[in-house]
Amino acid sequence: MSAPDARPVRGKRPKSGDPVVDRALALLAAFTEEHRALGLVELSRRAGIPRSTASRLAARLQAWGALERDEHGRYVIGLRLFEVASLAPRSHGLREAALPYLEDLHEITRQHVLLAVLDQGAALLVERLSTLGAVQVAYRVGGRLPLHDTGVGLVLLAFADAAVRAQALSELDSPAAATLRRRLADVRRTGVAVFARRRPAAVSSVAVAVRDGAGRVVAAVSVVVPVDAARPQAYEQVVRATALAVSRALGARPARAE
Amino acid sequence: MSAPDARPVRGKRPKSGDPVVDRALALLAAFTEEHRALGLVELSRRAGIPRSTASRLAARLQAWGALERDEHGRYVIGLRLFEVASLAPRSHGLREAALPYLEDLHEITRQHVLLAVLDQGAALLVERLSTLGAVQVAYRVGGRLPLHDTGVGLVLLAFADAAVRAQALSELDSPAAATLRRRLADVRRTGVAVFARRRPAAVSSVAVAVRDGAGRVVAAVSVVVPVDAARPQAYEQVVRATALAVSRALGARPARAE
Repeated sequence: MSAPDARPVRGKRPKSGDPVVDRALALLAAFTEEHRALGLVELSRRAGIPRSTASRLAARLQAWGALERDEHGRYVIGLRLFEVASLAPRSHGLREAALPYLEDLHEITRQHVLLAVLDQGAALLVERLSTLGAVQVAYRVGGRLPLHDTGVGLVLLAFADAAVRAQALSELDSPAAATLRRRLADVRRTGVAVFARRRPAAVSSVAVAVRDGAGRVVAAVSVVVPVDAARPQAYEQVVRATALAVSRALGARPARAE
Repeated sequence: MSAPDARPVRGKRPKSGDPVVDRALALLAAFTEEHRALGLVELSRRAGIPRSTASRLAARLQAWGALERDEHGRYVIGLRLFEVASLAPRSHGLREAALPYLEDLHEITRQHVLLAVLDQGAALLVERLSTLGAVQVAYRVGGRLPLHDTGVGLVLLAFADAAVRAQALSELDSPAAATLRRRLADVRRTGVAVFARRRPAAVSSVAVAVRDGAGRVVAAVSVVVPVDAARPQAYEQVVRATALAVSRALGARPARAE
């Protein structure tokens, strides 16, 4: 609260101006699912930026529309950022192509349907279709899921660069790493990841890779079903069909034998 | 192509650093639906920023994840921006609350379902559910629709601040403005906008306002139906039911007589 404002000292201004951009981006990064609305004090503290600087930069971001103020005067992420982000090929672009098929899968199964992409060591959720009556899951669009601990994550990890796999394996102890290694080999062999977890709810997910026109795995699609429903394996075929349909929409020509 | 790079002259550096932020934001604003991937030359030209500056700022944006490079080395909007934008209350926040009801409406009607909010004189499309077989519409999530020329736009305009309405009316010639004024009065009285257009396809849309807990109109929901389908009025009740359900999810307590 009492942090002194760090006024730029004459002659000590950042040389290239880049730190200013980094600071503006740090303001955006201060927002999280748990912190969707921030007063100036909290914004400045979370971004690690002196308050007067935070205030000045936030004003620029607000003028452009990247930030807005809510009814209590707190900063929130603005619509303009949503508008620009809607042009990201790996999220909205992918989503546009995939959505009709995801909706079909959702209607057929009546279960949660997820679409995720690999990003910085996590599965970033690009789309989630849910039914009010379906089992509770905590995932939300724009959120990150652990790679080794979700169906879509296992698929993305199985087909990721060796460096990404090595990183994920290095974070586990040796028996867990051995299990994961076997598991990823299974996913590469069968093309499907079936993953069960007990918490927060007992669910299984069935996930399959989506490929682009060059045959690269660019996403994973899954259904999340309660464990007391049908055997998760019963969903394999329909999820495969959806993944192939989305891949085709992206220009892929799936090989007959996977 | 031959624009000289404007190197910052010693002592003439921007005083507050703000112009640097504005320039970084201008780089993001250079991307549009028609320009989703930009080489450095085009990016710098569209943003109106010297090439060396654009290159340096784009590198910062890329390091953070706001920009990415595609397989041809061109800049595209990055996933990180999608991740941050997913925290915007007026887009993803609204969408999260509304989606289950929009999906119900979509399944019942089998027509396009739109959810839009008012932003800077336009209806910004926050969600669109479509069926492969439905009539073609050009709208995409994150895109802007004209207020006076779409169902959701008419609803948002009818309940907008007087200044927004005055601005929209001032852009029309006097007979068109008179027609629009009558139309908006109708929407306020009935709570529904029915709008027909011939191009690009002959469609009608039926739109109803969504209100928040304070009773403010915060969005509009619509179905878009081919004109040769049922009379659009046949969709009024179900769209009303959806709009009320979404409003309730936002904390509204709809009055019985609207």
